[in-house]
Amino acid sequence: MTQSTNFVDVYPVQWRDDQVILIDQTRLPLEYTEVAIADYEAMGHAIKSMVVRGAPAIGVAAAYGMYLGARRIQTTELREFVAQLEFVADQLRQTRPTAVNLFWAIDQMLNVAYHSGENVEQVKANLLSQAQQIQLDDLRTCQAIGAAGLEALPREPQQLTILTHCNAGALATAGYGTAIGVIRAAWSAGRLARVYADETRPRLQGAKLTVWECVQAGIPVTLITDNMAAHCMQQQRIDAVVVGADRIARNGDTANKIGTYGLAVLAKMHAIPFFVAAPLSTVDFALDDGSQIPIEERDPVEIYQPGSIRITPEGAEFYNPAFDVTPASLITAIITEQGAIAPGQLADLEA
Amino acid sequence: MTQSTNFVDVYPVQWRDDQVILIDQTRLPLEYTEVAIADYEAMGHAIKSMVVRGAPAIGVAAAYGMYLGARRIQTTELREFVAQLEFVADQLRQTRPTAVNLFWAIDQMLNVAYHSGENVEQVKANLLSQAQQIQLDDLRTCQAIGAAGLEALPREPQQLTILTHCNAGALATAGYGTAIGVIRAAWSAGRLARVYADETRPRLQGAKLTVWECVQAGIPVTLITDNMAAHCMQQQRIDAVVVGADRIARNGDTANKIGTYGLAVLAKMHAIPFFVAAPLSTVDFALDDGSQIPIEERDPVEIYQPGSIRITPEGAEFYNPAFDVTPASLITAIITEQGAIAPGQLADLEA
Repeated sequence: MTQSTNFVDVYPVQWRDDQVILIDQTRLPLEYTEVAIADYEAMGHAIKSMVVRGAPAIGVAAAYGMYLGARRIQTTELREFVAQLEFVADQLRQTRPTAVNLFWAIDQMLNVAYHSGENVEQVKANLLSQAQQIQLDDLRTCQAIGAAGLEALPREPQQLTILTHCNAGALATAGYGTAIGVIRAAWSAGRLARVYADETRPRLQGAKLTVWECVQAGIPVTLITDNMAAHCMQQQRIDAVVVGADRIARNGDTANKIGTYGLAVLAKMHAIPFFVAAPLSTVDFALDDGSQIPIEERDPVEIYQPGSIRITPEGAEFYNPAFDVTPASLITAIITEQGAIAPGQLADLEA
Repeated sequence: MTQSTNFVDVYPVQWRDDQVILIDQTRLPLEYTEVAIADYEAMGHAIKSMVVRGAPAIGVAAAYGMYLGARRIQTTELREFVAQLEFVADQLRQTRPTAVNLFWAIDQMLNVAYHSGENVEQVKANLLSQAQQIQLDDLRTCQAIGAAGLEALPREPQQLTILTHCNAGALATAGYGTAIGVIRAAWSAGRLARVYADETRPRLQGAKLTVWECVQAGIPVTLITDNMAAHCMQQQRIDAVVVGADRIARNGDTANKIGTYGLAVLAKMHAIPFFVAAPLSTVDFALDDGSQIPIEERDPVEIYQPGSIRITPEGAEFYNPAFDVTPASLITAIITEQGAIAPGQLADLEA
């Protein structure tokens, strides 16, 4: 177990020496490895294979992916440049279907290409600036989400035990985190007793990433398997649930990592407040409700091979949805950079 | 993946050549291995380390363990023999605290020692007969549970999709299974479309054992991770939930593998019938309700090392309860060898 690193601040996507440096999240926590990404194909592969994951971090990575694609385009003819950049956008859009931040960031970048200048070299420079701006904005947004979450958390008890699922931490964003941003803010304010982290099968981002982030930050963390959450609630160990989001429909229905919906039902049944922490860029105002959110299905190897060897006999079938949809009715509030919002009020914020 | 075996009938505990032969359930499905058990200490270790597991199978194994302890006792003095056998009983009782069948079977065997004869050799012979009778009774009981379950299942749709958790199959009993007994009966009657099997972290008995049993029996099975069950219910993929039990209080509150309680809440919320399948020997009439059932906590290595390597950083804490308690109010019926019984009517059956 490599624990020589000693960060408090974790930045999964960084721009250094004219390339993107990603923390390889498939190797954490056993190894802390950085991967240099110099072209958009490599970025697409990194997103698809979850070297970088988490909706806001995918957005930042895709923005840089767009720039990496742009800078390699040879033409000085703007119309041709834009056409080639749209091809790059199409490739990147095909990596992960559920996280709306991917599509949002790509559209932000295309808007720069469409509107920011007549000169290809200038547009390329603007695209890099825009990617950096998306990254910086996300970091600030996460800090604002943390502050808003601190206000929204229950007043009692003074020191809360918060359950979270998957990893909506610094590793899932430009830094600081959404759900873990709320947890960091509560910890800094002396309002946090402990985090319970669901391990989050099949890919174990809770066991691997959330626990790692909590340990880095000195936050007490108890790891449980996903099926222990109900028992912990029944035993009154949990005061609040805080999770992230991959896409939120305008009515507040929320797609997030598989298992989130079940937690929301259980929280409701135990009268435990259930919070979704996400930037407004996660809201897809084009969707009336969650039934329209596409749910990614991933390779069944993630299920039948939890370690290095296959554990399940031949002859079985598998179902591996990566996300589920929690209806707005089960969500106490959506914590955004503009404060905690009742899911039903979300549509009022449409720009 | 060894699939050379071709059973339909699986017997996890067998008496052969003056010793007990156990299927090593910690190696399934990768290897089908039998372990010979010749003394009670080895049987105690096999129960504790889950070479044999599942409440009814633990009862059968413990009964043979009592005989293995008895036959080694040297005295011909009955009072001294009984005293030494009580020591054996105490050792075996300490292996798994939650499964009541363990205590029930040990008490059955002690009753034979107390009441079946004046001659130590005769009592020893009676103890072997009693262990064999417990085994045979359990097999017949499971078949009766299967028949009762078939009657209790919903009439619609004609072909049901049943979700089960952990392994309450032939491997968990003398053979045939309790929850899987109901599934086998439904399959034989043409009333089963498919089984959904929760993988059942931390020890993955669903992925390893339930899937193996279904494949052996030719029953279509889809493996999911535990946190996918809610999503499958939301998508109306599940018509009924059938699980086993490790101990049932007289009011119907049921201890079973961790994760069962959460499934019961989810089933209630989705108006899906939730059945517990168990022999009446699983009912502990001495307990008024489930709050009195002791819950075993197991080694956290089961959580932080899902494969062959540790995945979680140092500095985290763990909580590893092996069971949870489902309140009677969430249980549609308890399927016993005497038919399907409303949990509230259970106390009427006290012998």
